[in-house]
Amino acid sequence: MKKIKVGVIGASGFTGEELIRLLLSHPFVEISYLSAIVDTPIDISQLFPKFKNRLELVCKNLDIEEATGRVDVVFLALPHKVSYTIAPKFLTKGKIVIDLSADYRLKDLNIYEKYYKAKHADHKNLKQAVYGLPEFYREKIKKAKLIANPGCYPTASILTLAPLLKENLIKNIIIDAKSAITGAGRKPLLEYHFAHLYGNLFAYKVFGHQHLPEIIQILSEISNKEVNLRFTPHVVPVERGILVTIYANLTKKITQEQLNNIYQKYYKEEPFIRFFKQKLPNLKDVVYTNFCDIGFQCEGKNIVLVCAIDNLIKGAAGQAIQNMNIICGVDERLALV
Amino acid sequence: MKKIKVGVIGASGFTGEELIRLLLSHPFVEISYLSAIVDTPIDISQLFPKFKNRLELVCKNLDIEEATGRVDVVFLALPHKVSYTIAPKFLTKGKIVIDLSADYRLKDLNIYEKYYKAKHADHKNLKQAVYGLPEFYREKIKKAKLIANPGCYPTASILTLAPLLKENLIKNIIIDAKSAITGAGRKPLLEYHFAHLYGNLFAYKVFGHQHLPEIIQILSEISNKEVNLRFTPHVVPVERGILVTIYANLTKKITQEQLNNIYQKYYKEEPFIRFFKQKLPNLKDVVYTNFCDIGFQCEGKNIVLVCAIDNLIKGAAGQAIQNMNIICGVDERLALV
Amino acid sequence: MKKIKVGVIGASGFTGEELIRLLLSHPFVEISYLSAIVDTPIDISQLFPKFKNRLELVCKNLDIEEATGRVDVVFLALPHKVSYTIAPKFLTKGKIVIDLSADYRLKDLNIYEKYYKAKHADHKNLKQAVYGLPEFYREKIKKAKLIANPGCYPTASILTLAPLLKENLIKNIIIDAKSAITGAGRKPLLEYHFAHLYGNLFAYKVFGHQHLPEIIQILSEISNKEVNLRFTPHVVPVERGILVTIYANLTKKITQEQLNNIYQKYYKEEPFIRFFKQKLPNLKDVVYTNFCDIGFQCEGKNIVLVCAIDNLIKGAAGQAIQNMNIICGVDERLALV
Amino acid sequence: MKKIKVGVIGASGFTGEELIRLLLSHPFVEISYLSAIVDTPIDISQLFPKFKNRLELVCKNLDIEEATGRVDVVFLALPHKVSYTIAPKFLTKGKIVIDLSADYRLKDLNIYEKYYKAKHADHKNLKQAVYGLPEFYREKIKKAKLIANPGCYPTASILTLAPLLKENLIKNIIIDAKSAITGAGRKPLLEYHFAHLYGNLFAYKVFGHQHLPEIIQILSEISNKEVNLRFTPHVVPVERGILVTIYANLTKKITQEQLNNIYQKYYKEEPFIRFFKQKLPNLKDVVYTNFCDIGFQCEGKNIVLVCAIDNLIKGAAGQAIQNMNIICGVDERLALV
Repeated sequence: MKKIKVGVIGASGFTGEELIRLLLSHPFVEISYLSAIVDTPIDISQLFPKFKNRLELVCKNLDIEEATGRVDVVFLALPHKVSYTIAPKFLTKGKIVIDLSADYRLKDLNIYEKYYKAKHADHKNLKQAVYGLPEFYREKIKKAKLIANPGCYPTASILTLAPLLKENLIKNIIIDAKSAITGAGRKPLLEYHFAHLYGNLFAYKVFGHQHLPEIIQILSEISNKEVNLRFTPHVVPVERGILVTIYANLTKKITQEQLNNIYQKYYKEEPFIRFFKQKLPNLKDVVYTNFCDIGFQCEGKNIVLVCAIDNLIKGAAGQAIQNMNIICGVDERLALV
Repeated sequence: MKKIKVGVIGASGFTGEELIRLLLSHPFVEISYLSAIVDTPIDISQLFPKFKNRLELVCKNLDIEEATGRVDVVFLALPHKVSYTIAPKFLTKGKIVIDLSADYRLKDLNIYEKYYKAKHADHKNLKQAVYGLPEFYREKIKKAKLIANPGCYPTASILTLAPLLKENLIKNIIIDAKSAITGAGRKPLLEYHFAHLYGNLFAYKVFGHQHLPEIIQILSEISNKEVNLRFTPHVVPVERGILVTIYANLTKKITQEQLNNIYQKYYKEEPFIRFFKQKLPNLKDVVYTNFCDIGFQCEGKNIVLVCAIDNLIKGAAGQAIQNMNIICGVDERLALV
Repeated sequence: MKKIKVGVIGASGFTGEELIRLLLSHPFVEISYLSAIVDTPIDISQLFPKFKNRLELVCKNLDIEEATGRVDVVFLALPHKVSYTIAPKFLTKGKIVIDLSADYRLKDLNIYEKYYKAKHADHKNLKQAVYGLPEFYREKIKKAKLIANPGCYPTASILTLAPLLKENLIKNIIIDAKSAITGAGRKPLLEYHFAHLYGNLFAYKVFGHQHLPEIIQILSEISNKEVNLRFTPHVVPVERGILVTIYANLTKKITQEQLNNIYQKYYKEEPFIRFFKQKLPNLKDVVYTNFCDIGFQCEGKNIVLVCAIDNLIKGAAGQAIQNMNIICGVDERLALV
Repeated sequence: MKKIKVGVIGASGFTGEELIRLLLSHPFVEISYLSAIVDTPIDISQLFPKFKNRLELVCKNLDIEEATGRVDVVFLALPHKVSYTIAPKFLTKGKIVIDLSADYRLKDLNIYEKYYKAKHADHKNLKQAVYGLPEFYREKIKKAKLIANPGCYPTASILTLAPLLKENLIKNIIIDAKSAITGAGRKPLLEYHFAHLYGNLFAYKVFGHQHLPEIIQILSEISNKEVNLRFTPHVVPVERGILVTIYANLTKKITQEQLNNIYQKYYKEEPFIRFFKQKLPNLKDVVYTNFCDIGFQCEGKNIVLVCAIDNLIKGAAGQAIQNMNIICGVDERLALV
């Protein structure tokens, strides 16, 4: 098979680095272009010694002309408000764009502006962007030119809740999410200093995290009704992974077996969803994988659901590659198991 | 002042070790007796090299005769079902007993039996035991002979919720608790292996943790009504500390300022409660201290409260010493700041 | 290509688990037999939920008859003193045995007895066992029936020192090694408790570690002279990896460039050795890989060399698979990049 | 007793923060002045919530006039090259200055310039500065006006080596040091990001660390001969502590008992040195204490010594307070046990 030529824009961040790491084991991919904000062009193996003897490629400041000439598919591992200025330039050249920022996820411009403090500058492409959650949008993804790759918290939250919401089985939803610090991006801030996070634990952005409207929009769309919920993220002192604990009330009497069957119905064929009948997931079982592990327990009308993913893989780079695989018509699991 | 002679029964566990560490800086305490299950009597500084040059005392298997002769106050840092066989022997000799196990916390024998899988063997003393939460039981503690020292999760949960429950301000309470692994005690189990917990995170005992009935009993007693709530504990990969995130609904409209005032009303004079008006607590600010940090945020009828304590100090050994100080009539803060 | 049928004996330990994880991505391998000491046969995905949806196989107590019937190659991820009772049973059936224990590494029976406190019970196979360090024994490995897979410390130490020793360039060697706790194996001991290791750091077995004679034997063999050195291992609170810092004196004047050339000479074609000309390796760049990163610095006659490997991969399971690949005549890198 | 009024200049760094934490438990100290580089004056409990309800004091940019009026003793927790511009201003006002930077440690101006890349600007005070290692300079410290508080690596290295060097018992010394990241100071650098250090381990400044000349100068002075040694520091992923492993050769035959006696001779009366006869120190036994734990093992002419300290306490803030206690004539252990 002819290799897919792939570029990573924003190669110096955590997700850019993880994209490269995963793509290196993809049998049909050639990494052909890398860019990041750098003082001077630099070998990627100089920037990340882990890639020594694995990838010979220079990482430089983005040159759109050169980049569009070199790639079939481009991953934008960029901050929001930057992606929407870059994506159109690749799209007009007919390239596939998989955007890992938040820029093409929210369809409501006012909500985007409220949570991201900026006016969206690419309304046209926003409309055609497909939300890259294969478990619910696979058919659309197959034909997409622009993927809005889901956020890490939304991936875990939506995959856990969507089946029960579609079936009208739950209400009064509260998501207590715990994330590794890599979710915040690679920034030289004092609050990310090893000594500040080691042994630490805290909640942040309690009612105002930008992933809240994303979760609500997608769950409402999937379940075809207005969804309401509370969401509180926390930082835990680990390098990778998100664990979400979700509290809700069942809307009617239902057995554990019936609930199992509902998850089976939605996810039986899904290569990256693992549903646990008898136990709750551990974060450690999913790190360094593209798996999304889900489990739950009930007591009366109360249900507690737990979901674990690797925030950098199923929550970012891995899911982005899964989307690329779907678009390119190759085995969805390539580079991911 | 004449020194208080203090014994620690169960000196080899995490709370026993922490009791010794803290008591060593108490100006009016002489540690006069140590016991643990040991093969042969052993210097405490042999068992814990951290106590070398700090404490010269042999730790041996419990000899009640000797122990009662040596102490004024005894801390039982024992597993439940053991404490209730030991406590009476010290009480009959007129010694003050501060029990850090769960044995004297639950007043309902059926609930004790359900959660601890044993019939309680000391009904008499159970009745007179005082729950050692100074912020709500200080007057009773002053006169107590037997203290049921609170559990770690209950300490954080009750101190955060009691003011709002007493004032009838909240309902629909969900406690999502995150604890260091030391809360589980020092046991040589594979699941506590460093490699199993490093980078890991998980929920456990979702509807059945033994601290749930303790939280309910005490909150019901304090607020003088039947309290109902959900409680899910998690293990996070840190050595010390508990962070609880509590979700609830306000029962009426109330301003942030009014809520602040309520906390001030209850805790203004409390030496170990720190209430944050504008921010949420970080776990790291309380480890190695006896402080309980509390903060909250509201949006509409929804309130999120966060509380942080050191599980081994305010959640165990520190609070036990605070109780001893109260009983002995010395400054409550001794050895604790 | 017909699949190689592979068994893992000792599937419940860290190296057994890692063998399975890596072998699952090997295109020409079928994992066909798993055993461990278990109370009752158990699905491997029950034992390790990380393998759910990845491997359907029961792990049971070793049944030699069944095992030999099911495998072409068997990995023994067993404690020393056990391997030498098991290996012969597979060898007599014509199976390839890759032993990850220490049992077939030391050729001198007295030294084995001194360091492992047991009389070796399989002299015959010991003689024909090939030390599985591909960089120096590749030709012998190709024809081997029994591989003594190197220890983790020896792998890092030998790969760093062998080129300079063969060239007679160094003397007065001191190895200060720092290892993740997984090097000690999965045992439910108090000293491996998360709370004991978190934030801790210590040296152990200062003059008597069992890897010392292994390092000496192999380096002496490779460099064809009697090698002498000091070796002190430490435990650091990480999950994976070994970093060795080696101190030595140069035996003659030599430039940095000449030293670089020597490493190039030995390792230019090696797929898993990465030699750094200008910098020293970081542990983090090799974890989850089969790479061995080496760098050095000189000042006058003093040289400091640093080497990093993942103790569970290049130091155990990865190297074992590398050996299997060589024996089976497939690309040495399969399942390893 | 009248309280000693104490100022901390550089209150926002790790050592400044630790000085405050420790001084808060000093019975004879009043913290009376705090400064740091801040945008605007800020409550110290706002900067460090851990000090809420413990210290009411504003931290502001240094105002020498105000500072000298408010303190008896000042701790300079400043970067090198800053201290030597500040110290003289306090000294001329007759204040005691305890400088935790490197500025007054090295007596040779050329060496200072070589390692700190600056010309020293306060030759006069440099001459009278006393090296604040109480175990060897206590008498001079008693009369000092300006203390050069030792570096963290030098404290551990010198305390371990000095007795054997004074007795002419060792040569060929190599120090392999492992430090927590807090030794590098609180700076918002990418290399200190939690995700970069978590699970990582590396050597740095192999032949050129600025603590090397400090160790050599002081050991030469104490042992009255020219000392030569090699020193390689490493960063380990912990928050606190330094463990040094020292390799050397004995210059003559000597028994373990005789070596023990030598350490006894030097350190028997020292309140913060703990010498272990039969075992090697663990880092964990000294963190959060001012202790320096030392142990060793011998084999033939080879000796391996291990020393552990808390880098922020005995390696910085604790030792500084120990020096203050000595100068002020109070119990040396106050605020430190």
